[in-house]
Amino acid sequence: EARANIALTKYWGNADDDLRIPANESISLTLDRTRTVTTVSFQADLKADEVVVDDRPLAGPALERVVRHLDLLRDLAGVTWRARVVSHNNFPTGAGIASSASGFAALTVACAGALGLDLSTRDLSRLARRGSGSAARSVFGGFVLLHTGPSDEDAFAEPLHGPDWWEICDLVVILSRVEKRVPSTAGHHLARTSPLHPARVARVAALNERLRQALAERDFATVGEIAEEDALLMHAVMMTSRPSLVYWLPETMAIIHRVRRWREEGVQAYFTIDAGPNVHVLTLPEYVDRLLTDLRADPTVQEVLACRPGEGASLIG
Amino acid sequence: EARANIALTKYWGNADDDLRIPANESISLTLDRTRTVTTVSFQADLKADEVVVDDRPLAGPALERVVRHLDLLRDLAGVTWRARVVSHNNFPTGAGIASSASGFAALTVACAGALGLDLSTRDLSRLARRGSGSAARSVFGGFVLLHTGPSDEDAFAEPLHGPDWWEICDLVVILSRVEKRVPSTAGHHLARTSPLHPARVARVAALNERLRQALAERDFATVGEIAEEDALLMHAVMMTSRPSLVYWLPETMAIIHRVRRWREEGVQAYFTIDAGPNVHVLTLPEYVDRLLTDLRADPTVQEVLACRPGEGASLIG
Repeated sequence: EARANIALTKYWGNADDDLRIPANESISLTLDRTRTVTTVSFQADLKADEVVVDDRPLAGPALERVVRHLDLLRDLAGVTWRARVVSHNNFPTGAGIASSASGFAALTVACAGALGLDLSTRDLSRLARRGSGSAARSVFGGFVLLHTGPSDEDAFAEPLHGPDWWEICDLVVILSRVEKRVPSTAGHHLARTSPLHPARVARVAALNERLRQALAERDFATVGEIAEEDALLMHAVMMTSRPSLVYWLPETMAIIHRVRRWREEGVQAYFTIDAGPNVHVLTLPEYVDRLLTDLRADPTVQEVLACRPGEGASLIG
Repeated sequence: EARANIALTKYWGNADDDLRIPANESISLTLDRTRTVTTVSFQADLKADEVVVDDRPLAGPALERVVRHLDLLRDLAGVTWRARVVSHNNFPTGAGIASSASGFAALTVACAGALGLDLSTRDLSRLARRGSGSAARSVFGGFVLLHTGPSDEDAFAEPLHGPDWWEICDLVVILSRVEKRVPSTAGHHLARTSPLHPARVARVAALNERLRQALAERDFATVGEIAEEDALLMHAVMMTSRPSLVYWLPETMAIIHRVRRWREEGVQAYFTIDAGPNVHVLTLPEYVDRLLTDLRADPTVQEVLACRPGEGASLIG
């Protein structure tokens, strides 16, 4: 099993697309209530890999991506048997809530377990990255830093602080469950077509320095400001890619303004948005009740998942 | 009188804030149906300048800005009399429909006329710029290029093509008449606080080259793509300024997606957005009826001004 994570500074765009080596370092928070449970069994009698996610069999590019990941781990173990993979998410898939992060982290850990591979968490993180960049972060709980290259060996995540370090809350505001038209993998390829991409990559390096310090000092306003700035930077790159990716919906815009009004009203709340229309509201425990009341009264809000720092990926069952 | 203009490539941020010398060249279209009529009379018996816009007397910073502009022209003419200025817009003021462009263009031309100054259109454009950067463009009709510095003398607009060159339509979709909280002048000052600003300035230079060619060839798809890209670039800079300026409303976002759906349906429509929530839909005459029908059926749309290329500023009455 593994959990999704919310990037406080985003991973967007690769230095190496094939190896999924990120263009910039990113820092995330693993979320307790966004859980993927995956079982993998390698079987001599299977002719092809079978993958079922949320009771639907995968096919086409989504299946190929998982097969490539299984191949990576099979090669390491010297195994050729095909696998049956069954995975369940307790949250919407493919809507910018990092289902690929929890999915590939869970798959990597479950696969390594099923194949009897004895790997360090660093190696698991590096391998998970090959399936989905942000999955490298979900291998760990709490506050996590994903390194960039230069090489495959250097691009792994490491924990900065465990889940007990600081009780930051992430209210995942679900506005749409529609799967996005351009999946993140395709978007990463497009990042470099934006004239703003190099400027963002340079800026994120400075933001990461400040963010590490703010997390160490539990300085919430600084964490929130950085998260909000980098979310806007990433969406600026997306919107100015060719083709342009506009993930925001009218409802997204309304929550952005709502978050800023909350701050004017003295509530410590900041937004961040992954590659989708749904908004993550970062806040502290004392504001959660107030924010949940407001959000649940909003007819454009379908559901709110109130998350806290969660554990890393692990073998269960 | 003068008309507003819609920037196809935007003016955002100054090389020199005091002189309003733009950081980048911009290209605009003067709009026929967004008209400001301004009368100026210099009177010996006035103790202070009196400025009335849309029947409301100006005060505070808005008044000071006009007084500084009057001073500029009085100095040129060697006149010290105070003035009474009465101005009417036939469209919403301060909501991102370039009311300051038409306003300061009309004021400059009316003032110069009242003071008996014999100035070239280039000088009128340069002077109008001191009041509002984009006013330099509204001095001319049709398709207009605003040069940057290096000095005050070099930063004037010039016509690229007259209003009869090409019947591009701009449907000004009014979603909100609320005056923006941060006026453009303040926003221009903030542009350089965005980490994306230098990348945008560099990109706009390349866009302007292509745009000049596309206007010369009447290549609408290229004009539209460039306008849309630079609108997103400018709003990316705004949103990542410190403080962050988010002018888009939920309704803005809905029109952005609507425009892209129209294109998928084979309608030639592109959006651009100035420093406000309202959207300009650029299109060709054959699509106007279809677009107006759709827009007027949309309950979030307050009004649509269907504009075509308009004339430059002139003395009337």
